[in-house]
Amino acid sequence: MTVYHDFFKVKNDKNKPIFHDITDKVKEIVTTSGVKNGIVIVYSQHTTCSVIIQEESHDTTLDGTKYLLHDLLDVFEKIIPKCRREGHYLHPGPKHIKHAEDNLDELGVWSLNTDGHLRSCLIGRSESIPIIDNKPELGEFGEIYFVDFDSVRERERFVHIQIVGE
Amino acid sequence: MTVYHDFFKVKNDKNKPIFHDITDKVKEIVTTSGVKNGIVIVYSQHTTCSVIIQEESHDTTLDGTKYLLHDLLDVFEKIIPKCRREGHYLHPGPKHIKHAEDNLDELGVWSLNTDGHLRSCLIGRSESIPIIDNKPELGEFGEIYFVDFDSVRERERFVHIQIVGE
Amino acid sequence: MTVYHDFFKVKNDKNKPIFHDITDKVKEIVTTSGVKNGIVIVYSQHTTCSVIIQEESHDTTLDGTKYLLHDLLDVFEKIIPKCRREGHYLHPGPKHIKHAEDNLDELGVWSLNTDGHLRSCLIGRSESIPIIDNKPELGEFGEIYFVDFDSVRERERFVHIQIVGE
Repeated sequence: MTVYHDFFKVKNDKNKPIFHDITDKVKEIVTTSGVKNGIVIVYSQHTTCSVIIQEESHDTTLDGTKYLLHDLLDVFEKIIPKCRREGHYLHPGPKHIKHAEDNLDELGVWSLNTDGHLRSCLIGRSESIPIIDNKPELGEFGEIYFVDFDSVRERERFVHIQIVGE
Repeated sequence: MTVYHDFFKVKNDKNKPIFHDITDKVKEIVTTSGVKNGIVIVYSQHTTCSVIIQEESHDTTLDGTKYLLHDLLDVFEKIIPKCRREGHYLHPGPKHIKHAEDNLDELGVWSLNTDGHLRSCLIGRSESIPIIDNKPELGEFGEIYFVDFDSVRERERFVHIQIVGE
Repeated sequence: MTVYHDFFKVKNDKNKPIFHDITDKVKEIVTTSGVKNGIVIVYSQHTTCSVIIQEESHDTTLDGTKYLLHDLLDVFEKIIPKCRREGHYLHPGPKHIKHAEDNLDELGVWSLNTDGHLRSCLIGRSESIPIIDNKPELGEFGEIYFVDFDSVRERERFVHIQIVGE
């Protein structure tokens, strides 16, 4: 029985939510682990990010977002709209915004990522995938995406891969 | 320590989203695995399907859908309505619809399952359940449902059961 | 390789949905398990409860709910509003409500928790977290919350912690 851990980093996009196709990276780590049968957890350690498994979609909008994933953003724009000004949501609260104003040029704008937190709540932090014959079982069309809903400033994100099996 | 894999198939309903109660099937596989303590992952390999654990609900609507599960469909009808025509969502895009038109009698209707993809994103692909004393811990009322949101054509679906424990 | 199980109980709040910060409890159980590397599943055995990982939020509303978590309730109030009377949702159905009327003083009010079931469907039952160096990997800001969406009567809730690793 083996426990195998690895991680890698991806960058967010400071202009829009971004979907990283991390399928090949996950497959590569599963291969390296040598685990033939078991489970792999693909996990975001960030509270404004999520992991989903969805179909590859070839067409993209003008900003490069795949059609299906843009449809997902459209759904969220209806139910958890992008935070556009302080007070739109209760979080992060006046004290936090004041603190940001005192310390940053950006007038606390970096705090206005409440929508990202809430969207991440609904989607969840991780996907657990069976490993069969040393491959994550993704079906015919499944691709693994790391979703970063937070676009208020540039930053690096950690994707953890935890494998248990034999 | 054991890793135990099994799978089974269920059929979708080409007229409506369908909820398969797979509780007994999962319990049976856990028993057969011989695993006393561990975890079981109940996993859909399809991008328009999900797994949920919910209460059994005896009353059903006229089409046979249990009340609670029909309430869930009503929620989705509000936030991610059924795709009724091409262009309702960006996905699958004009090229894909054209391709479908050229190859199928059904005028590409089989592609109009974007709502299923998006609903599956929100619910997720799997549930991970503790195994205690060779039984999945479901509480007093929990039943496991495989949900197929895709009803545009008949097809078979694979449910994977992956067990790790001892 | 070790499989380690533990559980603990929390109380709901009969007046409102409640978020229990169970981070320290989960960390303590991981420490006790002695597992250095592996996975921990934090699991609700109840069909109206969920587990989320979110940022700590210091400010609270007058009723004591943290800002970010109250924002989440506001989202749900839009998409899956609190059940206020029988018939608001199909579930639990007239037979069940009648049964409750015959047996309880509260005119079946205890059955009107359909919103809790549906919210739990969307969030899911559990979170799976990598264990690295005998700690659940939560990033800089992650806290684990057990969410109880059901506030129609007082009751105890079971949180299961299942650990697999070495």
